[in-house]
Amino acid sequence: MAEKGSIIELLALVNLERDHDLAEKLEEMAVQDIAEAMSQAELPDRTKILRSLPEERRTDTFSYLSHGQQREIIGELSPAESRRILHELVPDDRTGFLESLDPEDLEGYLKLLGPDDLKQSLKLLGYPDESVGRLMTTHFVSVRPNWTVARALDHIRHEAHRGETINFVFVTDERGKLLDAIRLKDFILARQDARVEKLMDDDVISIQAAADREEAVQTIQHYDINTLPVTDRNGMMLGIVTVDDIMDVAEQEFTEDFHKLGGTGSLTISVREASPGFLYRKRIGWLMILVVVNLVSGLAIALFEDAIEAVIALVFFLPLIIASSGNAGSQSATLMVRALATGDVEASDWFKLWGKELSVALLLGVTMGIAVSLVGIWRGGPELGMELAMVVGLAMLAVVVMGAMLGMLLPFILQRLNMDPATASTPLITSVADVLGILIYFSIASAILTLPSPVT
Amino acid sequence: MAEKGSIIELLALVNLERDHDLAEKLEEMAVQDIAEAMSQAELPDRTKILRSLPEERRTDTFSYLSHGQQREIIGELSPAESRRILHELVPDDRTGFLESLDPEDLEGYLKLLGPDDLKQSLKLLGYPDESVGRLMTTHFVSVRPNWTVARALDHIRHEAHRGETINFVFVTDERGKLLDAIRLKDFILARQDARVEKLMDDDVISIQAAADREEAVQTIQHYDINTLPVTDRNGMMLGIVTVDDIMDVAEQEFTEDFHKLGGTGSLTISVREASPGFLYRKRIGWLMILVVVNLVSGLAIALFEDAIEAVIALVFFLPLIIASSGNAGSQSATLMVRALATGDVEASDWFKLWGKELSVALLLGVTMGIAVSLVGIWRGGPELGMELAMVVGLAMLAVVVMGAMLGMLLPFILQRLNMDPATASTPLITSVADVLGILIYFSIASAILTLPSPVT
Repeated sequence: MAEKGSIIELLALVNLERDHDLAEKLEEMAVQDIAEAMSQAELPDRTKILRSLPEERRTDTFSYLSHGQQREIIGELSPAESRRILHELVPDDRTGFLESLDPEDLEGYLKLLGPDDLKQSLKLLGYPDESVGRLMTTHFVSVRPNWTVARALDHIRHEAHRGETINFVFVTDERGKLLDAIRLKDFILARQDARVEKLMDDDVISIQAAADREEAVQTIQHYDINTLPVTDRNGMMLGIVTVDDIMDVAEQEFTEDFHKLGGTGSLTISVREASPGFLYRKRIGWLMILVVVNLVSGLAIALFEDAIEAVIALVFFLPLIIASSGNAGSQSATLMVRALATGDVEASDWFKLWGKELSVALLLGVTMGIAVSLVGIWRGGPELGMELAMVVGLAMLAVVVMGAMLGMLLPFILQRLNMDPATASTPLITSVADVLGILIYFSIASAILTLPSPVT
Repeated sequence: MAEKGSIIELLALVNLERDHDLAEKLEEMAVQDIAEAMSQAELPDRTKILRSLPEERRTDTFSYLSHGQQREIIGELSPAESRRILHELVPDDRTGFLESLDPEDLEGYLKLLGPDDLKQSLKLLGYPDESVGRLMTTHFVSVRPNWTVARALDHIRHEAHRGETINFVFVTDERGKLLDAIRLKDFILARQDARVEKLMDDDVISIQAAADREEAVQTIQHYDINTLPVTDRNGMMLGIVTVDDIMDVAEQEFTEDFHKLGGTGSLTISVREASPGFLYRKRIGWLMILVVVNLVSGLAIALFEDAIEAVIALVFFLPLIIASSGNAGSQSATLMVRALATGDVEASDWFKLWGKELSVALLLGVTMGIAVSLVGIWRGGPELGMELAMVVGLAMLAVVVMGAMLGMLLPFILQRLNMDPATASTPLITSVADVLGILIYFSIASAILTLPSPVT
């Protein structure tokens, strides 16, 4: 948790222009909290805070701002100030910032980079979107297998400023091929005159730079490691991905799935920062698709207009019947989408799960069918009660089972088609279930109540 | 990613009873992959794999199984085997296993523990559910401020087997009060004869054992650290929480939110392992609540039965109008629930966001209203076209705005009432929006089409 007290105090010092106290406060606060405070301030104050920071803390603080805020603030800085920050950013943070820029702005910032930084940035930006390469840092420390532990530790000490993290020491051969990853702990525990190769178990977990970043999340979670080495296709070590980057990715991917489930396009920027126009464009697409689906519901109802005119009491149950199929469907879609995303179930499990979901749906349908039958008896009165109870009870059972099957199968089918199962959003399931629910309900009603047949 | 090839090979070796090859394979595979293979095998094979493992890898492998599988497999083991595993588990994994047991089984397993383990387990189980105390391990290494770096490193070497992780070295005073956390890296870089206190910056981020585990997730994410020290109310150090536990918690909490959004109770066990009866009990509650809400929709319709009989074409648009308000509501609820969960927005932002959501909703409503008006002109034909277009267009605008406001405000209100905003599930929003949508639609229709007034 950010320290709220400190943040409020910092903002007060900026407003009161107590520059001396501000400088002192900025010395002692955690950079993450300073960034948090900056994100709550207006742009001029934000720039002032950055400039009041000790030089060696500026870049670090900058790296904890959102990309949107980074773009705003860097636009306010002089080219010299921007150049310094861009140079000092660790490579993965620099890639993150650069890839968030519009193409026309990107060029201007690339010109500020020195030749080495430029070469490296262009290389990292060359990896596909959402790949491990975009996420990795090229700052890491490696040692050779024939060194002694003492020499390796000396080397690590010397190079420590380069390593973003040194919980793991990477062993590579002369050409840079990754041979092993050894915990720093094991180096400290080992005899100082032992060879590095004595510590090696030749069992190294790594990932390729071109792999999807989701795979990095799963690998780090599966093996409970803090640092994952990244290689090219030939096993040459290129960089590392660390667990803090992975947690950010995991959170973004969660958010994407969550938004898809709720039927909004996935937002890559924060709701707080997004403009109304942006939110409108993200949301209108799905809503209009659903309008079309729901017009089909209207057509389904139109088929039975005569039946409705004959027994107007049928309309009373209409919202209940169609909503229940949608609700049962949302439930099973939610369970399946999440289980597929976490790897709890796989596409090949569908048949087993289908059997289980069918039995759950039957239990749910029978319970809800009985409940709604009782309402049917009351609503239908002495003359129509029993028949209406039978219609709505059977319809409820049928639509709940139908909705649950739809909600369960659609994510699997999407997965099979190599689409994201989360596209089976609850509004989509609900709307499709509506159409089918209406047809089922009125068909059962027509059969039992001997109503006028559908308009053709 | 688990190594699928290895897992399949291992399962084949078990089936073929090639015990020698099996033992060799079990020496070289990662324990996480062995656990993955066990989770795919039947119980007798699972037990066989565990027993074929080298003794020193058994507990480690066991700790990567799900709690359900741990319970099953430990039921198959002799008391001596169980005792050994329980003794060797690190404290947080042991707490996790013990808290997953039924109360009647718990006692039996507690009896298997030695006095020290028992005392510690009872203490950890004494922390509230979902607190940091349940998550922490008590294995950590601490040093004193007046020691030299050389002495501290000696101590760390000596105690290294006790530390689950030693990326950080904790400095405590004689009574155990936490003073600082220093990166192991800094120890290695420092002069060997310097005092530990020279490395201290007296700025330590820690958390209390009684705090909610969500707070630990946020702290570790905010400060990008791998290990978080846990203290009691007086600052005495009790244990540590590591980032791998935090990632598991973050995933569980997200799954909970996801399930709530979809209107299933939150499942703490895997969908694959859950029995149909369990799934039924988890899901029927919400569905029955929604049945009641939807019966209110029926009553709302019943008010307007005469209007419907007079203009049966109104029913054609009914599913579209009510679904659209639910869909718009689901979208905004989804955005808000997630933004509140990630801390992107806070309860105090509601007024600003309300203004923004209102403008987005007006844009969405106008677009959808125009679209549905065109359908109204077609559907109403020459005599009723213009009037019907006006009714459905206005109704669409009104229900979309209403749905969006409902979806936006409900999560905020729940948060204010200290309830989980994710309780504002999409099925709930949809069902409530249905009732209000019906009332709005027929009220507008009654006013414009001069229909019979509501039945009273």
